[in-house]
Amino acid sequence: MTSGENRGRDAESGKLCEGRKGARRLTARRISAGKINQMDVDEEVCLPRLSRVAVCGGTHGNELSGVYLVRELLKLQRRPSEDDDEEPTSLLTVLSNPRAIQQGRRYTDTDLNRCFTLATLNGPTSDSPPYEILRARELNAMLGPKGGPGAVDLVCDLHNTTANMGLCFIAYSDCDWICLHIFKHLQRQMPDAPMRFVHLGMSEKESYSLDSVGKHGFAMELGPQPHGVVRSDIYVLMNAGVQHMLDWVHLFNSGAVFEGGFVDVFTLVKNIDYPRDKMTHNITAAVHSHLQDRDFCLLRPHDPLFQTFTGETLRYSGSEPLYALFINEGSYYEKGIALTLARKRRLAVPAIRAQTEEEEQARGFTSEEEE
Amino acid sequence: MTSGENRGRDAESGKLCEGRKGARRLTARRISAGKINQMDVDEEVCLPRLSRVAVCGGTHGNELSGVYLVRELLKLQRRPSEDDDEEPTSLLTVLSNPRAIQQGRRYTDTDLNRCFTLATLNGPTSDSPPYEILRARELNAMLGPKGGPGAVDLVCDLHNTTANMGLCFIAYSDCDWICLHIFKHLQRQMPDAPMRFVHLGMSEKESYSLDSVGKHGFAMELGPQPHGVVRSDIYVLMNAGVQHMLDWVHLFNSGAVFEGGFVDVFTLVKNIDYPRDKMTHNITAAVHSHLQDRDFCLLRPHDPLFQTFTGETLRYSGSEPLYALFINEGSYYEKGIALTLARKRRLAVPAIRAQTEEEEQARGFTSEEEE
Repeated sequence: MTSGENRGRDAESGKLCEGRKGARRLTARRISAGKINQMDVDEEVCLPRLSRVAVCGGTHGNELSGVYLVRELLKLQRRPSEDDDEEPTSLLTVLSNPRAIQQGRRYTDTDLNRCFTLATLNGPTSDSPPYEILRARELNAMLGPKGGPGAVDLVCDLHNTTANMGLCFIAYSDCDWICLHIFKHLQRQMPDAPMRFVHLGMSEKESYSLDSVGKHGFAMELGPQPHGVVRSDIYVLMNAGVQHMLDWVHLFNSGAVFEGGFVDVFTLVKNIDYPRDKMTHNITAAVHSHLQDRDFCLLRPHDPLFQTFTGETLRYSGSEPLYALFINEGSYYEKGIALTLARKRRLAVPAIRAQTEEEEQARGFTSEEEE
Repeated sequence: MTSGENRGRDAESGKLCEGRKGARRLTARRISAGKINQMDVDEEVCLPRLSRVAVCGGTHGNELSGVYLVRELLKLQRRPSEDDDEEPTSLLTVLSNPRAIQQGRRYTDTDLNRCFTLATLNGPTSDSPPYEILRARELNAMLGPKGGPGAVDLVCDLHNTTANMGLCFIAYSDCDWICLHIFKHLQRQMPDAPMRFVHLGMSEKESYSLDSVGKHGFAMELGPQPHGVVRSDIYVLMNAGVQHMLDWVHLFNSGAVFEGGFVDVFTLVKNIDYPRDKMTHNITAAVHSHLQDRDFCLLRPHDPLFQTFTGETLRYSGSEPLYALFINEGSYYEKGIALTLARKRRLAVPAIRAQTEEEEQARGFTSEEEE
């Protein structure tokens, strides 16, 4: 069972309402999703509106696109807007790790984006806990509590990678229709951007990252960009991605129906470490030049994998062809990850719409009765 | 006057011996330098042999090509070789900043590669001096003393940049014929590699980097590569560059005559900082996408320079067309450098050869008499 399946049942906003196959369709405008398999996706799911959305940057302090994008969003929010009264969605913009941002480092004491397990958030603290654990608890108080009804509806956490990953959604769930529909919307709106959906494939209990605090959540990961650098092309792409996401939320909350369709999903299978010296633990090879920058290519048995510093080619010894992701990501050296392998499959996504006010009220009464 | 002119006169090994225009040519094999202007370069300079050469990596701890290359050289040196007796050159391989390498950071307290001014090397120390100042003094004791007769003959310090700089030599002098001939040799041996010679254009007194400790010295800078990452293509290029440099030293010491020729040299003129917010000092724009990755292009007045985070294009306001270098280098954000501008000119380089043993002895006697 995937974490997504868990989350879909546990988190209030992830529950499916009655609007299943054959549900009454709203007359609101319909967003085309292209040709779809009606057998798989001809159902309509209605979900609670997304009234609170968080966009976070600088969870890793040296991933600069998100840092500068959130700073711009914060500036915009400080300016009074005539449309404010009309916007039913409240947008929270957060610089997640200000101390690491200030130091231009991924983190100061420990990786903040591994601190959002329930155990770390709710466990006992030591006398002098790492800064990032304290900050994770602050963020959980601000955006969560994780798993609770008061959590924000959607967290989009902005990241960069040195790998040639293009624009990726990274999510725990492969049946969070909100995230998958936002992804489909971005694919339609940004047809020239290389875009993929990566599914972490772990349980709710294991989920560790900031985006797991929201009822729905995903990391928006963009690369290639060196850490500590902001590139115009990557910034523009991330900015467009965030704006289209916010547009989608607005459409969704306004009653639009989004047609179902299919999404190719890459589910992580395993990580591969660099070859290392047994004594020193130093790496003895780099990713092979044939593989470098080819994220999402299919790695077949015996394909070149590493090139040792003495010039030898080491080949992939696995028996199953798998897709290579996060190839030579800079911050994963310390984690012992040279690349990640994934399986690809095509996922059917149902049509969705937001619950009407009546449906929400009816659901509220039902919940009270259940209590 | 350039630092190179100073160094050419001050440093013992940089002095020109009598073999000027019309000097007796050695019968040793001649290395072709292609078609040259005989009017400018038809002279022959003989210089002391290079008996001690240092190759340094990890002066910046997160510039990984040099770290892993030096580690490989160290492994090779530990293995006994049959050729050892025949090699007249002693090779020193140095990991310059082991503490920063261990931490995967550029430096721990202060930038080591700014600590090699005579003032910093020889000045008074505080009670708790920065680690890098102590390490600079250790390195100066090992490879120097800077400016003294006991300094190693040649320092090649290995660096990486996030900018698309290809393979660069960076040197203080534009008349250090040793460095310029090594550069010419690499150009011949690696015709497909993008290769440039950058001249810092500052005085001996101002010289601050590790390579300034040797009688001759240069930084070999390769990019683009994110800091904290090692890419196969960049590693292979650096390895080839270092091997060809050592080959050249061997040929030179063996009596080869290297024909003169021309080298295009980029002399730094000024740095340009990012646009910044006056209150917060945060940057408000990234390098324009038209300029990003186009290192060594000619930047003309009114060309796009920056793209603000709100989408505005800012243009180059200078009146002189200049060449853009180190565009969006990650470690220069903290130094307030978005890019560096340089002038290009063509430099005539004379033919050179090593002094014969008789010439060295004669010179030795002359020096003693002078004393």
